[in-house]
Amino acid sequence: MTTEARASGRAPEPFDAVDVIRTKRDNRRLSAKQIEWVVDAYTRGVVAEEQMSALAMAIFLNGMSRIEIEQWTRAMIDTGERLDYSSLGVPTADKHSTGGVGDKITLPLAPLVASFGVAVPQLSGRGLGHTGGTLDKLESIPGWRASLTNDEVRAQLAEIGAVVCAAGPNLAPADKKLYALRDVTSTVECVPLIASSIMSKKIAEGTGALVLDVKVGSGAFMKDLAAARELARTMVDLGTDAGVTTVALLTDMATPLGLTAGNALEVRESVEVLAGGGPADVVDLTVALAVEMLAAAGRPVDEPEVRAALGNGRAMDVWRRMIAAQGGDPDAPLPTATATEQVLAPADGVLGRMDAYAVGVAAWRLGAGRARKEDPVQAGAGVELHAKPGDVVTKGRPILTLHTDTPERFPRAYEALEGAWDLAAPGATVPTRSVVLDRIH
Amino acid sequence: MTTEARASGRAPEPFDAVDVIRTKRDNRRLSAKQIEWVVDAYTRGVVAEEQMSALAMAIFLNGMSRIEIEQWTRAMIDTGERLDYSSLGVPTADKHSTGGVGDKITLPLAPLVASFGVAVPQLSGRGLGHTGGTLDKLESIPGWRASLTNDEVRAQLAEIGAVVCAAGPNLAPADKKLYALRDVTSTVECVPLIASSIMSKKIAEGTGALVLDVKVGSGAFMKDLAAARELARTMVDLGTDAGVTTVALLTDMATPLGLTAGNALEVRESVEVLAGGGPADVVDLTVALAVEMLAAAGRPVDEPEVRAALGNGRAMDVWRRMIAAQGGDPDAPLPTATATEQVLAPADGVLGRMDAYAVGVAAWRLGAGRARKEDPVQAGAGVELHAKPGDVVTKGRPILTLHTDTPERFPRAYEALEGAWDLAAPGATVPTRSVVLDRIH
Repeated sequence: MTTEARASGRAPEPFDAVDVIRTKRDNRRLSAKQIEWVVDAYTRGVVAEEQMSALAMAIFLNGMSRIEIEQWTRAMIDTGERLDYSSLGVPTADKHSTGGVGDKITLPLAPLVASFGVAVPQLSGRGLGHTGGTLDKLESIPGWRASLTNDEVRAQLAEIGAVVCAAGPNLAPADKKLYALRDVTSTVECVPLIASSIMSKKIAEGTGALVLDVKVGSGAFMKDLAAARELARTMVDLGTDAGVTTVALLTDMATPLGLTAGNALEVRESVEVLAGGGPADVVDLTVALAVEMLAAAGRPVDEPEVRAALGNGRAMDVWRRMIAAQGGDPDAPLPTATATEQVLAPADGVLGRMDAYAVGVAAWRLGAGRARKEDPVQAGAGVELHAKPGDVVTKGRPILTLHTDTPERFPRAYEALEGAWDLAAPGATVPTRSVVLDRIH
Repeated sequence: MTTEARASGRAPEPFDAVDVIRTKRDNRRLSAKQIEWVVDAYTRGVVAEEQMSALAMAIFLNGMSRIEIEQWTRAMIDTGERLDYSSLGVPTADKHSTGGVGDKITLPLAPLVASFGVAVPQLSGRGLGHTGGTLDKLESIPGWRASLTNDEVRAQLAEIGAVVCAAGPNLAPADKKLYALRDVTSTVECVPLIASSIMSKKIAEGTGALVLDVKVGSGAFMKDLAAARELARTMVDLGTDAGVTTVALLTDMATPLGLTAGNALEVRESVEVLAGGGPADVVDLTVALAVEMLAAAGRPVDEPEVRAALGNGRAMDVWRRMIAAQGGDPDAPLPTATATEQVLAPADGVLGRMDAYAVGVAAWRLGAGRARKEDPVQAGAGVELHAKPGDVVTKGRPILTLHTDTPERFPRAYEALEGAWDLAAPGATVPTRSVVLDRIH
């Protein structure tokens, strides 16, 4: 196409997309200049969608070296703006989760960390498919708005110490375009593309420290520990090379986190955690991630002290101010769904298993998630768990409650839940694993 | 997307492009129904260009089984019309070349075969890149037109016995779309996609017998014999399975065919061959392919008798009627380029090598070919060879003449020719290989 460009009088491009694709197709290493050009030219629309999708598939199947991934990530950052909070006067730390079912951890975590003087500038996304999105959850709070200008983010960080809001359109625009393309071309589950997508946004966001929550299990992108470890290692390297102190925890996503999956349901549970209650796994993971973030930001705090901040109102205070600063009313009643149905225990016993993926799909189908990014979500929809693996259940008592505003969706939610859980005999011991499986730094 | 389609109320499709791509990406076999759907839905625009390009790259890298290639070919045929000449009362035979430099064989071949009572319904293409296109060559004849209706093709076949014209838009439309896509996504050089592309058109075209001229060497898609043999075997199987008697010759494309590469230049040489003259390699290959076509059509003719038809006016007579039937004047002077330059021999010696690819690129750059399918070509542009490997050359005498209407193109043609040929010492013996390297049936 370089030849064509010359022949047709268009401004010449230094590379030809066909050659760049061929390089990776033939399993050769892309040069730094090829990567820089192809990512930028794709963002400018010079490299067509069908060319980038062919390249993405070649990357999926032939991989990228560590240096190519680093260059690809940097090229994506360079297509947009790079924020900088070094003038804030306090350290910054952020957390990114690769996505799971019932993962509301950001909600209690951001105010908890901020309550110890480390600012949390969290630019979040919306849910797609069976995993929920932090912004969707917060938007179930009446009045709360996700969009802030860069100046508003900075002011809120300075005043309150925590912001959870939508990433602006100028943050790694290449990634936004590529993410949408990968979604429709079966090129999502690929370590180089996942790692560069996440890390380009997080590095551009300007955080000083980053803790990654890499989920493993049925409800996560990464179904097995080895793949999750590779992803975590790749991202920790990318962050470290870019000057961001980066640590990853590998955490369990075979079972949903906490007892709720759904937007307002998860906000309610998060507020319980901020009030010193809530499910043990949510509390434990929130505390573990907060300890990591504070340490990575250079302000280490002992675990018991962090845990205490969830009970003594310290984190709750930041939460209330953070919500109010973005127009939300922390005291307003949360929306509830208009219809509920319950799944009852067919016998006495011990809950043996509750599959995260199935619960996620059920919540999605009930209206908590979206199939296309322009779809609306239902604030009240979702799945409520009344038992977790290892808990005793009693015949006829509810195991799950399904919530929706559109009851015609119940049947497809039940379909998703078929075989999702099982009961062990009364008195049986069910092995459970701790939430945090490994740590990579 | 099946889920999305349901959610959005669009007519449901039986498959989801993302799942089909994932199947091939994960190196699993595509089902007949998946293939049928994805090819058809792509033609209808339901499967997007970026989805098909991801699938094409997955096919490129993971391959397709023989049965998948057969189903893919059939699916492409089924997107359009299938012609049938069984009512003509004479057998039909066609030839397809995978494309080379100086490959004007169709021009003498079609009338030669037709002169023995076998009808030749050749639907041809235009050149792209360094290989020329049969239609471009014939269009250098004043008045000749490439587009005929199906009825005109049938009438001309019945009257004259030979037609060379453009394939109509209804012949394997999936292939037209996919071919253009592969061209910009580095998914061209892939046996399953090349074989299904060629054979879908040739089977849909309705020929009873088919001889494939699979080129091997620098000027061909297939640079080595093993890859060419695999392509030939795949296409012979596809044709045979579809009820078309199919034979393949593997032929040399390390050196240009004949002494010309360029549109009018090649017509002139073809007319020389039809008049009993012309370069030996062009004559030999024309005769070899004619013998195969006549045999495959069930009307075998001995080689000497076929060869004689090039000298005795028999083939020339059909040529003149064939050209005239499509509006061309077989007696009109052919266009010539406005500028020529010569490459002179720097010493006495024997020509050792003349690289087909380099000559093809030079002819292309001089204006004989096009970079984009909407570009025009120059009728008179091209490269004329004054010697072939093994020929004696004399210091100061021309080895090549370059022709163009746009002399500013000379420098880039010279660039392409750098290192394209070499001279052996006077009296040296240069090994040459025969044009036909192998036969697969």
